Amino acid sequence: MSELRLNRATKEWIIVAKERAKRPHEFHTQKDRKGKLPDFDPDCPFCPGNEKRTPPELFALRDEETEANHPGWRIRVITNKYPALEPKKTVDMITGEFFKSTMGVGQHEVIIESTRHNKSLATLSLKQVQEICGVYRKRYLALEDDRRFKLIIIFRNHGISAGTSLIHPHSQLIALPLVPASIRHLLEEAMRYYDDHGSCVFCDMVRQELLHQKRVILDTKEFVAFHPFASRAPFETWIVPKNHNACFGNIEEEEIKAMAYALRDILHRLYLKLKDPDYNLMIRTAPIKDAQEDYYHWYIQILPRLTTPAGFELGSGVFINSSLPEETAEFLRD
Amino acid sequence: MSELRLNRATKEWIIVAKERAKRPHEFHTQKDRKGKLPDFDPDCPFCPGNEKRTPPELFALRDEETEANHPGWRIRVITNKYPALEPKKTVDMITGEFFKSTMGVGQHEVIIESTRHNKSLATLSLKQVQEICGVYRKRYLALEDDRRFKLIIIFRNHGISAGTSLIHPHSQLIALPLVPASIRHLLEEAMRYYDDHGSCVFCDMVRQELLHQKRVILDTKEFVAFHPFASRAPFETWIVPKNHNACFGNIEEEEIKAMAYALRDILHRLYLKLKDPDYNLMIRTAPIKDAQEDYYHWYIQILPRLTTPAGFELGSGVFINSSLPEETAEFLRD
Repeated sequence: MSELRLNRATKEWIIVAKERAKRPHEFHTQKDRKGKLPDFDPDCPFCPGNEKRTPPELFALRDEETEANHPGWRIRVITNKYPALEPKKTVDMITGEFFKSTMGVGQHEVIIESTRHNKSLATLSLKQVQEICGVYRKRYLALEDDRRFKLIIIFRNHGISAGTSLIHPHSQLIALPLVPASIRHLLEEAMRYYDDHGSCVFCDMVRQELLHQKRVILDTKEFVAFHPFASRAPFETWIVPKNHNACFGNIEEEEIKAMAYALRDILHRLYLKLKDPDYNLMIRTAPIKDAQEDYYHWYIQILPRLTTPAGFELGSGVFINSSLPEETAEFLRD
Repeated sequence: MSELRLNRATKEWIIVAKERAKRPHEFHTQKDRKGKLPDFDPDCPFCPGNEKRTPPELFALRDEETEANHPGWRIRVITNKYPALEPKKTVDMITGEFFKSTMGVGQHEVIIESTRHNKSLATLSLKQVQEICGVYRKRYLALEDDRRFKLIIIFRNHGISAGTSLIHPHSQLIALPLVPASIRHLLEEAMRYYDDHGSCVFCDMVRQELLHQKRVILDTKEFVAFHPFASRAPFETWIVPKNHNACFGNIEEEEIKAMAYALRDILHRLYLKLKDPDYNLMIRTAPIKDAQEDYYHWYIQILPRLTTPAGFELGSGVFINSSLPEETAEFLRD
């Protein structure tokens, strides 16, 4: 019979459906997309030489004496050409009597991670992934003092089923002018846990996962990567810093190296074992104003797109996981 | 520039991305799947004659003098062959020190909606859809007094991208032994609205939508169907009873007829205008114990699968909608 598991941090209940369970190797995808792609695609706006086809760059890591919006860059940050939100001066609440809306003020950036069209975080060099994580930090810090912004989301959509429209390796950043209710609820639950236990629920989770070991995939001095006890989908992976820290923006230069190592290691394992699965990657972090809180903890969440959440998940917020996190972790560990 | 809209009932913020916006007709899908399917498929376990290939029926509407688990039925309810949850005697909390879980106690039913393999709610007769809605009610009432169950979710996954594995028209019901945190949060927000305004937020929404008209698709004596001001996806449709009622289980026999009419009408419009799009349908209802509350209101939510929520949506709980609900509603109204 199946088991209902509670994720203590997110307060999500997960149904681990053992009767429907697949063995870990059954999840591997058939395609080997990236392998067949060219290193350079003349039609790709993110490939070097096509800089004029994107909005002007906000920031770049580039060779000395090369010019902005020309080749010579290693990582390039631009405004999204079709931004979900745009930086306007003020955020006015448009108050109808019942219907509430505001102008879509914010920032929507694209971080082009490499000049090479057919690479991904899993296959780039460790040095390049370090630079990418460093750029995440730089862009976060560049925006966090802007009073208009309340929450900064850094994310990565890998593959068509994960919602990407451009193959060229890139991440995105969206700065929001508000804290959504769902994030507020997460913080409230974490605060409640802190009240009851006197400790951060994420710190406790890290301690417990390290104690039990069976869901741990990677354990370094600074980070631990594991499949949560209540994973909402097969191969969901959390990469959590061991040092308590509510906000990604507080990360130190040294920790960036450790983060890159852990991130690349996990994505490389997924790439090899599941044959380059589509996935979404999110850096989950506290709202800017809560950056110093004791009860929240930033982490990286990777959600491979191996199954489809459907009406039950949408209607209940409960997820059915057709794999055992203990088995998938073991499979990735080997 | 885009607009941020708040759904007052769910407290979700939606980015209406006008720059990315598609015109309504651009969403229509290419396939005409159902049209090419046979009326009967000898390999389908839900087709008549194959009753032995499913778990035994829990309930059926069938012709007189026909035998259970044999042909003669019009609608047939069975236990899911691979149930996410199963009805066991007790629900014990398995308390580890940190990791919490319980046995997967509950009920998981499949409602086979028709004998005809290639039909769907959009193309069945009104009489048949009335009988289906009546069976929803019957099954809800059969389970709501069971002390083990706290929340009953009725849902329908239409099409591969909506997560269905069997084409034959069917809905599902899952009775959960707990109230998930996300549902609790919805109720708390609705309660807060009630405290502030002295009215149900859904009742107010219905009034406001009827006042503005521009997002209303169908308005009958008993139900109103509209695209919410803050729709999270293109063509998201809510079908809301005008009479205040927290719980689907409280629906009267007469209202079932009106519900079937509205449901079939909306699904038929989507079928015609978007060429049989994949969708998820959920009956959103209060937990069983909250069936009489003044602050919550049951409704039907239809979410066509025309776009893919990605890392930003998963990480923030904010949805980017690339259409204007006012335009999509007008398109469906015509």
